[in-house]
Amino acid sequence: MDYYSGYINQLIEQLSHLPGIGVKTAQRLAFHIMNMPADQAKRLADSITEAKSHVQYCKCCQTLTDKELCPICANVKRDHSVIMVVETTQDLAAYEKTGKYDGVYHVLHGAISPMLGIGPDDIRLKELMQRLQGDVSEVIVATNSSLEGETTAMYISKLIKPTGIKVTRIASGVPVGGDLENIDEVTLLRALEGRTEL
Amino acid sequence: MDYYSGYINQLIEQLSHLPGIGVKTAQRLAFHIMNMPADQAKRLADSITEAKSHVQYCKCCQTLTDKELCPICANVKRDHSVIMVVETTQDLAAYEKTGKYDGVYHVLHGAISPMLGIGPDDIRLKELMQRLQGDVSEVIVATNSSLEGETTAMYISKLIKPTGIKVTRIASGVPVGGDLENIDEVTLLRALEGRTEL
Repeated sequence: MDYYSGYINQLIEQLSHLPGIGVKTAQRLAFHIMNMPADQAKRLADSITEAKSHVQYCKCCQTLTDKELCPICANVKRDHSVIMVVETTQDLAAYEKTGKYDGVYHVLHGAISPMLGIGPDDIRLKELMQRLQGDVSEVIVATNSSLEGETTAMYISKLIKPTGIKVTRIASGVPVGGDLENIDEVTLLRALEGRTEL
Repeated sequence: MDYYSGYINQLIEQLSHLPGIGVKTAQRLAFHIMNMPADQAKRLADSITEAKSHVQYCKCCQTLTDKELCPICANVKRDHSVIMVVETTQDLAAYEKTGKYDGVYHVLHGAISPMLGIGPDDIRLKELMQRLQGDVSEVIVATNSSLEGETTAMYISKLIKPTGIKVTRIASGVPVGGDLENIDEVTLLRALEGRTEL
């Protein structure tokens, strides 16, 4: 497509690498950006650069944050003896929105998936096991109820049980195959209340 | 949403300003970007900045280009006496893809829309009228076949007729209500061949 400037083609190509953005959508977005005021386009570009350069993993729970320790791990009012294990930072946010959970989290950044070649060493399980050497009374496994999420839950359960720490799984209020982050807060709460020991 | 870093929220907000991108999609894109390799994220941000800083309007046809004069206007082999008027650079690209049109273009960057408060002075009509003082034999109006596109075509026709220059409209091969950029090349060609004098 040499009808456009090489710079526009470059922008279209970069945008089309984003998930769910095909070439047509990338073109539409690129031309929208071209017609934006310059300062607004700069804010968009800067927000990408700044987020990438400032955001890091919390040294405790591994969530994405801009501090060494995330606000939840740094909060002394939270119950640090209860750890909820989630797949992504978005899932953490989904439970935070309920406003009823006062424990802390652990973000795995993925789930075990033999199909995709993702093993236990590819997600942040090692960091979770290290945390269990502290004063932990319960680990709530809140991975998605997908095949990968269930596999991960079973794996975590087997890993933790020998330590004597209670391991629970959020209840089946979460629809099978659904993504945690898209579920309404009432369902999320019901799943939390109905958790069972693994 | 203070569960995320302020930088991530900033990125989500900027992305959600893009057309067709809601908050959920913006979140998904933002976390995808956070998990990208740093150099890939940099390329995305740079492509926005570079496109905005290098791309300008062609001083002749007003299309988006990275030179003072776009490759089509600079091409002496094209027939500069035939000007096709289109709404957007994407529409220009749609006709270029047919490979059968050898005239030049004029990009309006919009269409007259009383509903949206877009008048003749808000699109690049003045620049078109200036070009007609040169050696022009025909103006082909290829605005969309939407209400706005038809209004613009009628307006251009009335504006140009007194000069004695032939004004044509692409034929009704273009489905009513359709956007030019999404139409197949055969239909675009049929519309070009069947053009009638306004």
